[in-house]
Amino acid sequence: MTATAVKLEKSQAEKALNAQAALLNEVTKRLAQKNSDNGKVSVSKMDKTQHVFYQLAWMTAQQRVAENFIVYAWDASKGTGELEQKMALTFAAETVSNIRSELAARPAEYELTYQELFSKLFSDEINSFVEAASKMENYEAIVDKIVDLGHFGAYGLSEDHENFRGIFKDFAENVVVPHAEHVHRHDDLIPQEIINGLKDMGCFGLCIPEQFGGIQPDDRPDNISMLVVTEELSRGSLGAAGSLITRPEIMSKALLKGGTEEQKNKWLPLLASGEKFAGIMVTEPNYGSDVAGVSVTAKEVEGGFVINGVKTWCTFAGYANLLLILCRTEADPSLKHRGLSILLAEKPSFDGHEFSYKQEGGGSIQGKAIGTIGYRGMHSYEVSFEDYFVPKENLLGGDAGRGKGFYFQMEGFAGGRIQTAARANGVMQAALEAALRYSQERKVFAKPIYDYTLTKFKIAKMAMIVQATRQYTNYVATLLDDHKGQMEATLVKLYASKIAEWVTREAMQIHGGMGYAEEYPVSRYFVDARVFSIFEGAEEVMALRVVAKDLLDQALAS
Amino acid sequence: MTATAVKLEKSQAEKALNAQAALLNEVTKRLAQKNSDNGKVSVSKMDKTQHVFYQLAWMTAQQRVAENFIVYAWDASKGTGELEQKMALTFAAETVSNIRSELAARPAEYELTYQELFSKLFSDEINSFVEAASKMENYEAIVDKIVDLGHFGAYGLSEDHENFRGIFKDFAENVVVPHAEHVHRHDDLIPQEIINGLKDMGCFGLCIPEQFGGIQPDDRPDNISMLVVTEELSRGSLGAAGSLITRPEIMSKALLKGGTEEQKNKWLPLLASGEKFAGIMVTEPNYGSDVAGVSVTAKEVEGGFVINGVKTWCTFAGYANLLLILCRTEADPSLKHRGLSILLAEKPSFDGHEFSYKQEGGGSIQGKAIGTIGYRGMHSYEVSFEDYFVPKENLLGGDAGRGKGFYFQMEGFAGGRIQTAARANGVMQAALEAALRYSQERKVFAKPIYDYTLTKFKIAKMAMIVQATRQYTNYVATLLDDHKGQMEATLVKLYASKIAEWVTREAMQIHGGMGYAEEYPVSRYFVDARVFSIFEGAEEVMALRVVAKDLLDQALAS
Repeated sequence: MTATAVKLEKSQAEKALNAQAALLNEVTKRLAQKNSDNGKVSVSKMDKTQHVFYQLAWMTAQQRVAENFIVYAWDASKGTGELEQKMALTFAAETVSNIRSELAARPAEYELTYQELFSKLFSDEINSFVEAASKMENYEAIVDKIVDLGHFGAYGLSEDHENFRGIFKDFAENVVVPHAEHVHRHDDLIPQEIINGLKDMGCFGLCIPEQFGGIQPDDRPDNISMLVVTEELSRGSLGAAGSLITRPEIMSKALLKGGTEEQKNKWLPLLASGEKFAGIMVTEPNYGSDVAGVSVTAKEVEGGFVINGVKTWCTFAGYANLLLILCRTEADPSLKHRGLSILLAEKPSFDGHEFSYKQEGGGSIQGKAIGTIGYRGMHSYEVSFEDYFVPKENLLGGDAGRGKGFYFQMEGFAGGRIQTAARANGVMQAALEAALRYSQERKVFAKPIYDYTLTKFKIAKMAMIVQATRQYTNYVATLLDDHKGQMEATLVKLYASKIAEWVTREAMQIHGGMGYAEEYPVSRYFVDARVFSIFEGAEEVMALRVVAKDLLDQALAS
Repeated sequence: MTATAVKLEKSQAEKALNAQAALLNEVTKRLAQKNSDNGKVSVSKMDKTQHVFYQLAWMTAQQRVAENFIVYAWDASKGTGELEQKMALTFAAETVSNIRSELAARPAEYELTYQELFSKLFSDEINSFVEAASKMENYEAIVDKIVDLGHFGAYGLSEDHENFRGIFKDFAENVVVPHAEHVHRHDDLIPQEIINGLKDMGCFGLCIPEQFGGIQPDDRPDNISMLVVTEELSRGSLGAAGSLITRPEIMSKALLKGGTEEQKNKWLPLLASGEKFAGIMVTEPNYGSDVAGVSVTAKEVEGGFVINGVKTWCTFAGYANLLLILCRTEADPSLKHRGLSILLAEKPSFDGHEFSYKQEGGGSIQGKAIGTIGYRGMHSYEVSFEDYFVPKENLLGGDAGRGKGFYFQMEGFAGGRIQTAARANGVMQAALEAALRYSQERKVFAKPIYDYTLTKFKIAKMAMIVQATRQYTNYVATLLDDHKGQMEATLVKLYASKIAEWVTREAMQIHGGMGYAEEYPVSRYFVDARVFSIFEGAEEVMALRVVAKDLLDQALAS
């Protein structure tokens, strides 16, 4: 039975979302006033009710994703139509439901009264929209339409980007997928076939301007290409492909931001060609997302620096032969993050879960992989340095770069964050497709699982989420192309990461017992998706210290 | 800074919960009327809006857990006090928030109007309670109290049960925990030391009356003992200990329900002593939670039956030397689940991921373990039978048991379900303790993670959930002791399973990067917890076909 959807208008969704945006703005403004001193946001005041600010970030993320989804669905240039519009409307209604529910749980914490909340977000008009758009038959109509059309909604890319996507989709399906299960189950290193294939396609030069040997236009960044490649590779395997370009990307961004001309001319072409593989060394055993606490030292010696200390969670650090190391070059501890610099260190490339290398001068580096429940293929190492020598010319930005390591690395991190959203989108897309396929093949009580309305509800909801997240990710990429959207990159990283847990969880659930079996890829999607909220900035730090803080700053400035 | 909680009264929570119970009853009644034919619940009508019934089951579960939590917290005989009362009040407020939010998302689907919903659940009185009890400072007061007291609330057990708990807690900590990481990471079989230890303590006779060699009183079941042992062992390791007594438990219940005197006298003492280890063979590759579709056959031959076909997800089937096999003894396909019987088959015990055994008469059995992301230690096998001979005396219930296999096995399953809740409680408790410990040890931005209010919020919420779920599990055990509460056993399995995913997720998140590392037990709790919603009855089938169906049946009958 194909259900028919309730007739809904775009304007209803817009009115509801606008009312909600206005109320969220008001909440943000009141919270900013309450949590400030002399017109400046007070983090220590914010810290007294962190959950409220975590939720503010989360609600704002949902709101913006939903608003953008409506814009996309009615943008003729994106190739959208009935399916995308149905999804955007129901997604909007869910968003309103979620946000007003959170506010209604503790209005006073949000500086609201129940009366205000009811009059603004529980009006008859909004209620009618929420109720109509949340009807079960809408979900069924969405998923039936998906099956009719044979796709989950328009990607909305330019023809060039769409062609690009096709190339990497094919590569992922033909080259990556056949290795994915083996790499995961044996915690193996990514096969050379995948790395070489991506090298040949110029993948590691995606964020490097043509003048430095990359494939990005010289005049402006092209973050969409990077996202498209990342999503398609991650759809094949997060660990064995989708994360390969993250490190070159972070290093390239840092080099472009802080490198001297000489450094850019030397290293960027080597990164672009894949001759040099990047390792990023920021986190330390005692410091995670708060990089200002870095304690690895780089002491000046004749001709350069010697590095001492321990870095951790250094993904692919064994294979990498060029390391970006955030370290403390300035002895004065009161400088905090202004005492940090970036050094680029070379080392030989190693396979295996452990490595050890001694320099001629006596310095050494050692690494040992940390076993993880997913995200396997690159190995994440704890790495210790002992008097490891780095020539002076490898200090990023030269003498002028001293003490600026934190800022250079932040530039790379915004790229890493939006890329994490794209990685989450790829894993979600894979899970969604697996769930639909399995539900059509597998029978329970003599009917395919797909024929049950609970399955349709879940798949429709998954599809809405994946498309809404992808579209917002792509939107943020256009902001980054204009060197804006740092906060939004974090916002979408936060959103995509957490929602990917739900999508992969439900995809696994649709598989029943087999979802828990390692031979089904969905079990890998589930454990892989769990890393997103942890790495590239833990969700708590992203929500509180970046998103909520920025929202409050903006509210005070306006 | 230790926050002080807002003064709240038990009566406020009771009023809010009572109003909500009344509305949920009304919703259930209206849905029952709408989804019935001639006074009987129509499953095919229910199937048209399954998500609504899934939510009805979920809301009802939350409601009952919250009601019971209040009763427990004010029951002096349980040794409860301020901590438990604070937790129960805030948990009640969260429950009201959750349920009224779901109803407000789509009232018409629940046969409600917005007006009804607002007047019943958004009254000034309920709003004041929800707002006051959900305040951030309550969460802080709860977790500070936990740290002051050094525990997470009273278990509320009798002295005998508390002593019993102590014995198994010690065993888990001293014998199980040292093996847990190794078993998980190497997908090893449970070490003999653990199995022998539990044998010596009589663990496999927990659900077997004393007259049959077990340790349960003859006059009535003692489900609490079984739950206490299960929870403490699962706190040590789900795979390496906590699930060991599930299979003896299911087999014992089926034997007690359907076995002849001779069968009970023969097998129960062997199970109780651990001489015979049970394997349960119900699920098939093409049938999961809908056991009526079973296709493995048992054909009558001289002196017994020969079994043919494939069973799957047979946990511990390699080690097991006594199998309970649900199979089709009656050729007439129209008999459906009334054509099924239970056969008890012996086989040798094997280690390893594969086994194969040939009977003298030519029959054979083969098994191969299915790799899974968690729940490791017992191995779950796909098992194929070829003309495997079982003597006639092993037909459960003798000739009178023919066609009754489904019913006998259902009795065992109710036990398996409440035991699954206890397993979830154990894993949640372990995760909660690990999260609190880690948060106190690990610093971020120069302060222990524990000192951040978001951490306190999470740990308080985890603690409330774990205690509320445990107390409801124990309450259902007393129903089962009186041979009631079959639906409630499913309800608490549903609730504990799903909420364990949240608890372990947040515990992992509090660990930051290390939470994703296999060397930290919390990563194992996370993957282990994921199995609960899948095995022992998938959550969708439990929610729709057992809980919601039963609620509607009751509503029509009243």
